[in-house]
Amino acid sequence: MNLHGIYPPIITPFRNGEVDYAGLAHNVRRWMGTGLRGLLALGSNGEAAFVDDDEAERIVATVREGVPRDRVLLVGTGRQSTRATITATTRAAKAGADAVLVLTPFYFKSQMTQEALADHYRAVADASPVPVLLYNFTNVTGINMTPDAVAALSAHPNIVGLKDSNGDIGQVAGVVARVPPDFTVLVGSAATLHPAIVVGASGGIVAVANVVPEVCVRLFDLARAGQHDEARALQRRLTPLANAVTAGYGIAGLKVAMDIAGYAGGEVRRPLRPAKPEAREVLQRLYEELTS
Amino acid sequence: MNLHGIYPPIITPFRNGEVDYAGLAHNVRRWMGTGLRGLLALGSNGEAAFVDDDEAERIVATVREGVPRDRVLLVGTGRQSTRATITATTRAAKAGADAVLVLTPFYFKSQMTQEALADHYRAVADASPVPVLLYNFTNVTGINMTPDAVAALSAHPNIVGLKDSNGDIGQVAGVVARVPPDFTVLVGSAATLHPAIVVGASGGIVAVANVVPEVCVRLFDLARAGQHDEARALQRRLTPLANAVTAGYGIAGLKVAMDIAGYAGGEVRRPLRPAKPEAREVLQRLYEELTS
Amino acid sequence: MNLHGIYPPIITPFRNGEVDYAGLAHNVRRWMGTGLRGLLALGSNGEAAFVDDDEAERIVATVREGVPRDRVLLVGTGRQSTRATITATTRAAKAGADAVLVLTPFYFKSQMTQEALADHYRAVADASPVPVLLYNFTNVTGINMTPDAVAALSAHPNIVGLKDSNGDIGQVAGVVARVPPDFTVLVGSAATLHPAIVVGASGGIVAVANVVPEVCVRLFDLARAGQHDEARALQRRLTPLANAVTAGYGIAGLKVAMDIAGYAGGEVRRPLRPAKPEAREVLQRLYEELTS
Amino acid sequence: MNLHGIYPPIITPFRNGEVDYAGLAHNVRRWMGTGLRGLLALGSNGEAAFVDDDEAERIVATVREGVPRDRVLLVGTGRQSTRATITATTRAAKAGADAVLVLTPFYFKSQMTQEALADHYRAVADASPVPVLLYNFTNVTGINMTPDAVAALSAHPNIVGLKDSNGDIGQVAGVVARVPPDFTVLVGSAATLHPAIVVGASGGIVAVANVVPEVCVRLFDLARAGQHDEARALQRRLTPLANAVTAGYGIAGLKVAMDIAGYAGGEVRRPLRPAKPEAREVLQRLYEELTS
Repeated sequence: MNLHGIYPPIITPFRNGEVDYAGLAHNVRRWMGTGLRGLLALGSNGEAAFVDDDEAERIVATVREGVPRDRVLLVGTGRQSTRATITATTRAAKAGADAVLVLTPFYFKSQMTQEALADHYRAVADASPVPVLLYNFTNVTGINMTPDAVAALSAHPNIVGLKDSNGDIGQVAGVVARVPPDFTVLVGSAATLHPAIVVGASGGIVAVANVVPEVCVRLFDLARAGQHDEARALQRRLTPLANAVTAGYGIAGLKVAMDIAGYAGGEVRRPLRPAKPEAREVLQRLYEELTS
Repeated sequence: MNLHGIYPPIITPFRNGEVDYAGLAHNVRRWMGTGLRGLLALGSNGEAAFVDDDEAERIVATVREGVPRDRVLLVGTGRQSTRATITATTRAAKAGADAVLVLTPFYFKSQMTQEALADHYRAVADASPVPVLLYNFTNVTGINMTPDAVAALSAHPNIVGLKDSNGDIGQVAGVVARVPPDFTVLVGSAATLHPAIVVGASGGIVAVANVVPEVCVRLFDLARAGQHDEARALQRRLTPLANAVTAGYGIAGLKVAMDIAGYAGGEVRRPLRPAKPEAREVLQRLYEELTS
Repeated sequence: MNLHGIYPPIITPFRNGEVDYAGLAHNVRRWMGTGLRGLLALGSNGEAAFVDDDEAERIVATVREGVPRDRVLLVGTGRQSTRATITATTRAAKAGADAVLVLTPFYFKSQMTQEALADHYRAVADASPVPVLLYNFTNVTGINMTPDAVAALSAHPNIVGLKDSNGDIGQVAGVVARVPPDFTVLVGSAATLHPAIVVGASGGIVAVANVVPEVCVRLFDLARAGQHDEARALQRRLTPLANAVTAGYGIAGLKVAMDIAGYAGGEVRRPLRPAKPEAREVLQRLYEELTS
Repeated sequence: MNLHGIYPPIITPFRNGEVDYAGLAHNVRRWMGTGLRGLLALGSNGEAAFVDDDEAERIVATVREGVPRDRVLLVGTGRQSTRATITATTRAAKAGADAVLVLTPFYFKSQMTQEALADHYRAVADASPVPVLLYNFTNVTGINMTPDAVAALSAHPNIVGLKDSNGDIGQVAGVVARVPPDFTVLVGSAATLHPAIVVGASGGIVAVANVVPEVCVRLFDLARAGQHDEARALQRRLTPLANAVTAGYGIAGLKVAMDIAGYAGGEVRRPLRPAKPEAREVLQRLYEELTS
């Protein structure tokens, strides 16, 4: 399974508090008309923390219907316990996931030694019917999986890659230098997609690819082709919108941007709050500046 | 409902990976033979993050059987979404909770403004059949609810108290100074139980009370009676074990200490790791020093 | 030398960019008319980081003139290198310091192990003509000296005490439990002065004592006399002004409050910025609420 | 003045506690035989925090003697107060500095708003006889100067560049995108030198260039020439030693590595501690792996 390329961590559209499966299917159809390598369902940006197990299963099934077999459907299945992570992984695989993305457990931060994390991932990978990708995201978890820990886990036959969302290019380079060539390193920060590819990353799972998948794919292609001046220029044009739909305005802002771009964005679930009117104005402007 | 006093955030004993309900019932019987004001089921120390919804319901029911109506059964029901928190709260109330303890949601830290937290708590309190206590625990969540935010929420008729586990006595004093007299402030740090009561806290929900409830109750009584020299002396004796069963050796260590004290401690669930042999030795020594 | 009691970390008044020695002498005279145990010159609040060596020497001499021998003159002499700290300590002692307060060096944070700190303090204490107090202030330094490290250093015959400005009452209690009875623990946070004394602190070096020394001394006396209800009530009245002149409005705010109280406050040195007009209004109100 | 290229932040060799000026002159001669663009004297790695003003002046003069006018001598002159920074800047310029590097003041972190920093830098730049480079190093200072703040200051005619030591490539890219083309951005992290150049940095001031200047210059040349595969490969070979002489073993380790490479390394000043024997072994091995 070749995982190289660009993926959006797809949002979960809600309407009147419930999952909008029709909107979701609409989005998937449209994304599949672009050069995206695949989709990640039920990541952080999918508000996976806010959907229940039955919703999760139906979301995966809905997305699977729209993702042909030559594209990749990744599904986020990290839970706080090893046991629950295995259960979620098994369900996701059954519902159609090609591979799963497993966030480091983090509730008991101070006890999540590199050893505890390794033990967790090995148990999940042993039990999973599909390949597993590690997921390192310190802003959310307060935990950083070191390059050495990733390297050790990369020897497991069912652990095939890493998503690293820290935006720390030095650490990405450190990982790439230590893992086998067929271990896939995807990054989660669109604002450093170009330099990440320069140091050896194989692609990205980036929020802004929900909104402007074509631009992200184009940036990836330029960087991989060694057209670094063009890549740098496009990166600079992409970064303002990329920052606005993540750190800037959060998931509510990302969904507003999707509405602007003609996708089904919709509501966020509480305790997230709707975007403020000025967010919409800024996002509209940034979207137009990038795409015009 | 008078909530003043000492509560253990009770551990969930596991055996061969499953909840040991008999062990749990045994523990409850023994705790109810002490001066504890009540119990908190499904807090952090109860590994609530690792039990599923059906286990949670049965745990509450099991504990309720052993807790007479003149004692207090608190149940942790915080979830990441407002929706799931309300569902868990309703189930806990039905299963016998006298009140619920709701941890601040924290998955999307940067978006959890004081306003978003207030909105979340109001929605939960509006929907909850039983009174709600706020729960502030920055080490786990990365979020700090300010005294002003607590004060604003204390006006809600169904929000009756706060557990603050930060060990920040200045902030505890700040909260006490701002809330009505019948709003209960319980602290989560045994090592600062005495000074917390001095500045106005009404008791504590402290891990070490799982192991030595009598000592914790005695400390509470001394502090409330104004016998501060005796309280300070007892606090100093309690602190080493209190630190060892939390920051020191984590929940696995707490369970070892419970085994030592004749309670059903048992296993932890992964990704937590069993205590190392040296932890057992240290805990044995600290337990004996405190209780001999 | 009995160090128990309340000290202001005295501000250094500036006028037209230069030290206002006359204003300083005026302040000292007035402080010496209260029950303060002594003064700390050239602490953080004295903008010691902004005065040069010759100014420092003259500041100490000026203050010494006004501080009778039965009161205590402490002087801050911490520098980044051991060598410079010893030089500053020797000069301060010659200029009249009764004891020196030495902040942990912190420029190379990651290399300041407990061992390196211990080595530094032993060298300074060996060389110092006057007793040395340790100074732990993590907000400024990013370094925390553990209770065990303090306890080890308390065995040195020329290390007689600690100022701890972290406001962490549990840690203050931990230190007090580990050091000999004649080792003095002073705290730096006025908002937790009362609970600090309850757990065994011997007094405080607190910014707000620049402005309202009598109130701070009264709070200390109440707490030491075991009049905890009165102490708690006075603590609550003191805390708003105490917070405003430190975390709230910084040293510029502290100086404004001194002007309000009839002391010589004056300018701050850049890069600190003058207080904004609304700071003056708030401080005026808080001062009047406390002293009326 | 073209500042593009590689600079070592040169160490200050000490022998028997005093500056070893002969060793320093030896080092300068040898560095000047390489393709280095220039030298930075009295940076963090120069233990500037530990040398006094007279030593500083003589260090600058000693280095200036060995640096021809077509190379660049940068000197670190940041102090905590604006006043002292201006004094140090003026002395450094008189002693021969071509430009000065000014670390953000950081003693009063919480009060160092972007506005206060801007005001500080403008005052220093107005007063400085030579051009000024901003210096952002959050690990040391706890302060981060934002790309917007840097962009605003880049309009000042006497502020000509920035050293950014955070290793945050996204932020480097953000700065480059906002400043005029003749504003020089140098980075301080050797482990991300290649990606930094890819996103637009003009060079680096990196500790490991003290030891292996030729390798760093070669990496810079490859990256600037667009030979990214070769650059990436060389970056991977350089990174282990680069990490070891900074985060790994600190300045004491850097000096050991210099001894190994035939430069005058020498002692560190306390409170820094000498490198342990195993550091020497590791550094020897890493040096040989890189240079053989």
